[in-house]
Amino acid sequence: MNYKMMGQFVAKILAVEAAFMFPALLISVFGREATAIRGFVGAFIAIAAVEILLRLTCRGAQRGFHEKEGFVSVALSWIILSLLGCLPFYLSGAIPRYIDAFFEIVSGFTTTGASILPAVEGLPRGILYWRSFSHWLGGMGVLVFLLAIAPAAGGDGFTMHLLRAESPGPSVGKLVPRMKKTASILYLIYIALTAMNILFLLLGNMPLFDAVCTAFGTAGTGGFGTRNDSLAGFSPYLQNVTTVFMLLFGVNFSCYYLLLIKEFRSVFRDEELRLYGGLVLGSTALIAWNIRGLYATLEETLRHAAFQVASIITTTGFATADFDLWPSFSKSILLMLMIVGACAGSTGGGIKCVRVLLLLKSLRRNIRQVIHPRKVQVVRNNHQVVDEKILDNTNAYLAAYVVIIIISVILISLDGFSTTTNISAVLACFNNIGPGLETVGPTCNFSAYSTFSKLVLIFDMLAGRLEIFPILALLTRSTWRRR
Amino acid sequence: MNYKMMGQFVAKILAVEAAFMFPALLISVFGREATAIRGFVGAFIAIAAVEILLRLTCRGAQRGFHEKEGFVSVALSWIILSLLGCLPFYLSGAIPRYIDAFFEIVSGFTTTGASILPAVEGLPRGILYWRSFSHWLGGMGVLVFLLAIAPAAGGDGFTMHLLRAESPGPSVGKLVPRMKKTASILYLIYIALTAMNILFLLLGNMPLFDAVCTAFGTAGTGGFGTRNDSLAGFSPYLQNVTTVFMLLFGVNFSCYYLLLIKEFRSVFRDEELRLYGGLVLGSTALIAWNIRGLYATLEETLRHAAFQVASIITTTGFATADFDLWPSFSKSILLMLMIVGACAGSTGGGIKCVRVLLLLKSLRRNIRQVIHPRKVQVVRNNHQVVDEKILDNTNAYLAAYVVIIIISVILISLDGFSTTTNISAVLACFNNIGPGLETVGPTCNFSAYSTFSKLVLIFDMLAGRLEIFPILALLTRSTWRRR
Repeated sequence: MNYKMMGQFVAKILAVEAAFMFPALLISVFGREATAIRGFVGAFIAIAAVEILLRLTCRGAQRGFHEKEGFVSVALSWIILSLLGCLPFYLSGAIPRYIDAFFEIVSGFTTTGASILPAVEGLPRGILYWRSFSHWLGGMGVLVFLLAIAPAAGGDGFTMHLLRAESPGPSVGKLVPRMKKTASILYLIYIALTAMNILFLLLGNMPLFDAVCTAFGTAGTGGFGTRNDSLAGFSPYLQNVTTVFMLLFGVNFSCYYLLLIKEFRSVFRDEELRLYGGLVLGSTALIAWNIRGLYATLEETLRHAAFQVASIITTTGFATADFDLWPSFSKSILLMLMIVGACAGSTGGGIKCVRVLLLLKSLRRNIRQVIHPRKVQVVRNNHQVVDEKILDNTNAYLAAYVVIIIISVILISLDGFSTTTNISAVLACFNNIGPGLETVGPTCNFSAYSTFSKLVLIFDMLAGRLEIFPILALLTRSTWRRR
Repeated sequence: MNYKMMGQFVAKILAVEAAFMFPALLISVFGREATAIRGFVGAFIAIAAVEILLRLTCRGAQRGFHEKEGFVSVALSWIILSLLGCLPFYLSGAIPRYIDAFFEIVSGFTTTGASILPAVEGLPRGILYWRSFSHWLGGMGVLVFLLAIAPAAGGDGFTMHLLRAESPGPSVGKLVPRMKKTASILYLIYIALTAMNILFLLLGNMPLFDAVCTAFGTAGTGGFGTRNDSLAGFSPYLQNVTTVFMLLFGVNFSCYYLLLIKEFRSVFRDEELRLYGGLVLGSTALIAWNIRGLYATLEETLRHAAFQVASIITTTGFATADFDLWPSFSKSILLMLMIVGACAGSTGGGIKCVRVLLLLKSLRRNIRQVIHPRKVQVVRNNHQVVDEKILDNTNAYLAAYVVIIIISVILISLDGFSTTTNISAVLACFNNIGPGLETVGPTCNFSAYSTFSKLVLIFDMLAGRLEIFPILALLTRSTWRRR
């Protein structure tokens, strides 16, 4: 293992984190929020200390990164970023216990949106800004982001391995051969969409601070908001704008790139996009039918159904209604959407639509093979034959997914909450959604869980965000074995 | 498709069913149970009519069976057997609604043990006997059974394809090259174990009728009993005997064959058996620790923990305690055991220990491959390299498993029961266990579900018992397409 190189890498990321914390400090300074200022200054000092320590101990590193160093660096930097990034919450006193602050920032960076805070309206604005901004940072991946502004640390091999660990979805995709160019294009699309989102919210008379924070939460498909009742208190127009933008941020960003270069046909024909669109329309229709009578008008029914469907499938986690009170059919559909998740190459979480597509197609292939054993059959996606290695990885992904969920549910059930609470808490964290059902439902929070359970859920959030394998690689003996 | 051959096959099985219904009729005749006699006689007439019809229309069939005919024959014969096998329940008035009677017999033949009856103690003995005996028949597979007594219908190809569809577990195993001989050995072990079970129950002063029926339910890992409170009312000795025999019937029967030929070493080293044993011991210890204080003595605590663990992992479904009242940690462990299930090649259901082993091993292989992409890695089981095709099928099995569970939960949630009820109902039926949690918990039953939901759960029971693929083959267009 090239430990020195990994140390330098983490040090670089910490510098970026500190830089991005600066606007939050400014907000607190202008707002004369003494406790928040203390929190940010303390965090700066801690980050600087760790960074100097890393730079001193990791001088003179040899270049050259292998896959395992890439995976371990990504996983470790998310953990270290979170361990230090939660200091403003903790040192300002906004969140009195360190484990809770850690939970909150991991939830932020992984764009989960699960909170341990019972109320957010009394918090300093700088703290709220940093909380929402962590979604925006995490959403695009701090590392893809870093690739766009920092020189690649060790040539293409390095960036390639990092991007492979970071980028959501089964294949990195070949947007543009050069990694750095890809990263900057994704980054520009991300900024442009966020700016449009803020603009549309401002047009609906949302206050600037709320608009910016809500757009951060939407862009990262995170779900932290600035109000205790999430988006329930905002106007129908603002809710609908958020529905549309959540859905937009759940689309594979390569589709936007294809739109930019006028490849409309391949976007329209994209099978993942069609599945995603079909799931959104179908689920909204079924839920609206199921909750008819709960709301006064058809408009209101459709608005709540569409909002919650968009919020769950994109794994954002905003709420306009307490869907825990909806009939079980609607709740079952939402649980299914929690598992499916958004498109690959978006800021959303979950298994991802394209994986679901590949799983279903390879399942159909296997049934056919059982019926006609002498016929060789391939799996196609968008009319191209899918490499068996990708299918193999997709299947392994599902196996890891099921195993982690089962073990996590068993571990957190030691706290004695109901089975539905536990299953939905794990699904909500692992798929980076935020709220679950019952004790962790949209009007509740995760504070009641024990420290041990919070650590399990933190693991789930990280594993879900990093597509499982980098985090599992951390725990595998063969990663740490000397050659 | 060779429809005539399939018709002849089904006709043969119906004759066997009628023959096995005869002892139940005799019990009713001796007990002077008029309604039950009416039920059995009506069922005989119906079966004879269908059989004559099939034999007349399917005369002069060409020999020769392909995989798909094998799969379709197996799936169809389970359905037709159940459609006619439930007639005694329905015609005797023991179960007034036909869909409920159908649910009950599917639950019997698939050795699920999920019931729609709120109470069984008032039922005629002939009916109770037939209900329990359906477990015994189903447990070994009506078809493996048929292979042992009837001449193979179309040579080795035929029996091979049938056994492939029927035999639980990922590979048929090479007990003895000749199929018929294999079937008779399995059959003899099954009868011997059942006889021993009856004997041990009689030694504990259980009445003969109860002992026979309980042993049928244990042997098939079914779970239908003769008392309303399952085994709670019987003595600790009888409960412990049942615990031991449930566990014995959950072991891969090839282990018993190996013991017979004194291959002790390979039994002791069998990885599946070790996982199974480890899960039983570990879960019992954890649950006993978790429910300490609920029962008066350590003996009672351990007895209930071991009984419920054995009952769930072997997918039997007997109960001595209402585990729905246990703490959530215990319930989560039981939910996990529901999914894992017993060993392949046993009468139990679930994913099967060997599949879990293969899934975990191929997952470990994939993680290693991500870390060291240039190393070729194989998966071994019992020190032998596992064919990639088997791994592929195991992964497809998991995918099908997850997809069926999610769709089933959504469909039955239309009835409006709680999420835990719905998830556990689907798990209990699909894994052929019997009781679930809450509304379908060990002291409750499935009668509250609508006809539509019952059909969904019947599908799940059949899909689970036939290892998914034969039932999915029934629903696949390419099965029915002409060449």
